[in-house]
Amino acid sequence: MAQSPYQQLEQEFRRLHAFRGAASLLRWDAAVMMPRGSADVRGEQLAALDSECHALLTSPKVSRLIERAQANQAQLEDWQLANLREMRRERDRAIATPLSLVTRLARATALAEVRWLEARQENEFSLFAPHLEEVVALTRDKAQVLSKALGLAPYDALIDGFSPGFLSADIDQLFRVVSRRLPTLIRDAIDLQSTRPPLPLAGKVSVSKQRALVLEVMRALGFPFHRGRLDEASHAFTEGVWGDVRVTTRFDVQEPFTALMGVLHETGQAMYDLGLPAAWRDQPVGRDRGMALEESQSLLLEMIVGRSRPFLTWLKPLLEKHFGCTGPEWSVENLYSTLTRVRRSAVRADADELTYPVHITVRYELEKEIFDGTLPVRDLPEAWRTAFERRLGLRPATDTEGCLQDVHWAIGSFGYFPSYALGSIIAAQLYESLRAELEHFDADIAAGRFGALFDWLRRNVHARGASVGALELIQQATGRPLSAAPWLRYAESKYLEDEAEPAPDEMAATGTSGSTQPTSLAASPPGSTES
Amino acid sequence: MAQSPYQQLEQEFRRLHAFRGAASLLRWDAAVMMPRGSADVRGEQLAALDSECHALLTSPKVSRLIERAQANQAQLEDWQLANLREMRRERDRAIATPLSLVTRLARATALAEVRWLEARQENEFSLFAPHLEEVVALTRDKAQVLSKALGLAPYDALIDGFSPGFLSADIDQLFRVVSRRLPTLIRDAIDLQSTRPPLPLAGKVSVSKQRALVLEVMRALGFPFHRGRLDEASHAFTEGVWGDVRVTTRFDVQEPFTALMGVLHETGQAMYDLGLPAAWRDQPVGRDRGMALEESQSLLLEMIVGRSRPFLTWLKPLLEKHFGCTGPEWSVENLYSTLTRVRRSAVRADADELTYPVHITVRYELEKEIFDGTLPVRDLPEAWRTAFERRLGLRPATDTEGCLQDVHWAIGSFGYFPSYALGSIIAAQLYESLRAELEHFDADIAAGRFGALFDWLRRNVHARGASVGALELIQQATGRPLSAAPWLRYAESKYLEDEAEPAPDEMAATGTSGSTQPTSLAASPPGSTES
Repeated sequence: MAQSPYQQLEQEFRRLHAFRGAASLLRWDAAVMMPRGSADVRGEQLAALDSECHALLTSPKVSRLIERAQANQAQLEDWQLANLREMRRERDRAIATPLSLVTRLARATALAEVRWLEARQENEFSLFAPHLEEVVALTRDKAQVLSKALGLAPYDALIDGFSPGFLSADIDQLFRVVSRRLPTLIRDAIDLQSTRPPLPLAGKVSVSKQRALVLEVMRALGFPFHRGRLDEASHAFTEGVWGDVRVTTRFDVQEPFTALMGVLHETGQAMYDLGLPAAWRDQPVGRDRGMALEESQSLLLEMIVGRSRPFLTWLKPLLEKHFGCTGPEWSVENLYSTLTRVRRSAVRADADELTYPVHITVRYELEKEIFDGTLPVRDLPEAWRTAFERRLGLRPATDTEGCLQDVHWAIGSFGYFPSYALGSIIAAQLYESLRAELEHFDADIAAGRFGALFDWLRRNVHARGASVGALELIQQATGRPLSAAPWLRYAESKYLEDEAEPAPDEMAATGTSGSTQPTSLAASPPGSTES
Repeated sequence: MAQSPYQQLEQEFRRLHAFRGAASLLRWDAAVMMPRGSADVRGEQLAALDSECHALLTSPKVSRLIERAQANQAQLEDWQLANLREMRRERDRAIATPLSLVTRLARATALAEVRWLEARQENEFSLFAPHLEEVVALTRDKAQVLSKALGLAPYDALIDGFSPGFLSADIDQLFRVVSRRLPTLIRDAIDLQSTRPPLPLAGKVSVSKQRALVLEVMRALGFPFHRGRLDEASHAFTEGVWGDVRVTTRFDVQEPFTALMGVLHETGQAMYDLGLPAAWRDQPVGRDRGMALEESQSLLLEMIVGRSRPFLTWLKPLLEKHFGCTGPEWSVENLYSTLTRVRRSAVRADADELTYPVHITVRYELEKEIFDGTLPVRDLPEAWRTAFERRLGLRPATDTEGCLQDVHWAIGSFGYFPSYALGSIIAAQLYESLRAELEHFDADIAAGRFGALFDWLRRNVHARGASVGALELIQQATGRPLSAAPWLRYAESKYLEDEAEPAPDEMAATGTSGSTQPTSLAASPPGSTES
């Protein structure tokens, strides 16, 4: 029987998915397994796969099928319609960015990255500046063509490439609310914490011990090792596709929590990937709903759950078992103080949960100014220092610890930074809702029972794939529009608490018990007020 | 400037090479790293890449470019002409086998492999027979279409898919010479060895010790670890492309030489891959010259060099260092007796150098009869038993140890088996020549100096890629046509020696010293007589 245009499209995108899955595995291998000298060969393989994907999306055949499928929309079901919409979105983005521009950008960013590394090592911004200017110019070209194709403002068209569904106007509003409160919140938290500094965690912990611990933690979280693996890499990341997810982390014998926190972060994303709707796994609608949502899953697990007393209550005997650590500095309360310590730091990668949004908002504002030309690239270092002094009361001593610390701009990732803070804000809102809905949440976590948590996330976030927009997904999961209020409530209660919280078993009924169960795809509103 | 048709072809085949390299890495990962549950996802990725390669080769564009390039042949240099010839060869094979046939074969062999595994476990050939019949029928269809396209007899067209350049008439002739001599040779070798049985090597050797040993051996052989790696797998194999070669081996704590011999075998092939002409590495002419040549490189290193007294003289202190083994059973002479032991066995994988060709010739003859229909599939078990009884004086007790022991036929690899024995014959001929040309060969090996060996192989075999046919390559490397005589001379002198050879340092001048140095691509004849 002849296939309908829509069915033929699914066939084409199945091929696209297979190519992208292959490319993802090649990237994982390059970071984890590949011999150092083989980067040239790998680069050619990845370029061939990328250009094949581009050719597929921009082929006249796919465009013709999309038109014909749209003409017969009435015969499609909801998920098929959403899939068609996502197909069109991908096609539009690909057609808007011709291969010549993609190639020019790839070449410019490859060079800029090398120069950025040098500039960072030498603390010499001028080595990097001309290459950044080139990348900015090409990124503007890309934003222009995307803007026209997608009907978005140029900078919004860039955001759309990472976190579709978010506009800079919304982000401005969210960040404004957080930024208004942060300076005093950070000051008060630091003051409060200074009255009870944690005992230092002395001594090294071998990689093999750390690995045994994080593997046990991943197993308890429900990570399916028959569908994924954990490896060591120079930084923590997650690659792969539904059905084969590769998590990595970095081990540091001096810092026994680096690997574990990296693993929690990545497992949050991995569980998202693994919880995507299986029936749509090789279609655009079966993909995750963008960077901000992915980051929310990572931060929810690492920052909110992982750095909580209930989690540390569960973790403590595991630390004893694997690390053999038993002193008072390994008490739940001391671990909690250590892992929630707020510190003003110039470096994003070292930042805690509370100062992290400052790092992001500064980058977000500067990159918009660079992008629209109001901030010349050559003035970036001073603008960076000034912004950090004003926002964090701290002037980075060098550009290496200032505007040269991140690779993002060198590789043309403008519009990426806001996803980090958005992820934090989304995580807090999801957390508020799931806590309200799940009875015995803290007691479950303290007992190492993560099933209810991931069930909730799967139902309300993971299994929805890309069937609805990000903001709609959040609204349906939590019963209200995305706002910064839950984040502020979460941060205030966590960082301005006067004393230690009650022990986990006393906390079982903290959530609003008896709330209605969510329906299969969308959660009922938990009924909290919105500020 | 516009590209010539030939240059455009190089561009297309560069893409093909990238896809194949990606597929090779995916296969390596599937065998070494992949979580067990992810086979479905991987299968889809590999199928997408395979059909992309098929689409590329069969595209009207590529055929048009080939025609136009051929019309302008006068402007091409030798390697370009050879490259064009290989492009045409690949195109012809792809066009001859339509995707529908490829898909039907893939489905039939996937099922046959599963049934073969069951049949083997249950020692019940009838479970497998109907599936083998289906595979044979489809393989005949494939051979028919290839036969027409390539102007080869049907079975020769299958051989051509593994070892291009070899015809069954040549193979018949080579195997006839070997088979005539083998029965008495095997009998005499066993008789002779029974007069001095080796002391058994008792005790287990841990995987970590074995790994340390094989890594040191690979380093000494010159394996470039910045361009490749060694991993553990359920069987030894080599994957990858020039510039990124992945070797695997299997470790067995009870059998301390399994991993090492596997590594020698695979390193032989890996050095071939890594020695292919770099300038042509992403073109058809830059590929290896087929399975028989690859196998020759493996067997030369594993069987001829690796199981020789000079090599074991070098190895002994390494065994002492890594395994801590010092007893009399670890003497060079006892190791040599152990590793060159001839035994009649029903199982190919356990066979020694001398009985191995029997296993191959039996399979070769049976598969030709199955293929041309003179042997019905249902009669295979009895035909197998009869053949082994006649050729090796040994009747396999079960079909599991008989015609069900190999996967090759289940996966449709008819025409593959002869490559193993051809590899052995080629290896012996190359060895005779390089020994004659290289001074101090044994002394070099005994001292762990493998440079001259691999220089010779690179110059005469590896660096030639697919620029000439296999038989021509061998003729130019050794100065004479391929024949079985060197193999017989080698086997006789190794297995019928009356007593231990002189110590390595006395053997330095054994080769015909003073022979002319080979020219850049083709070796001068070493001047030995041909029988």
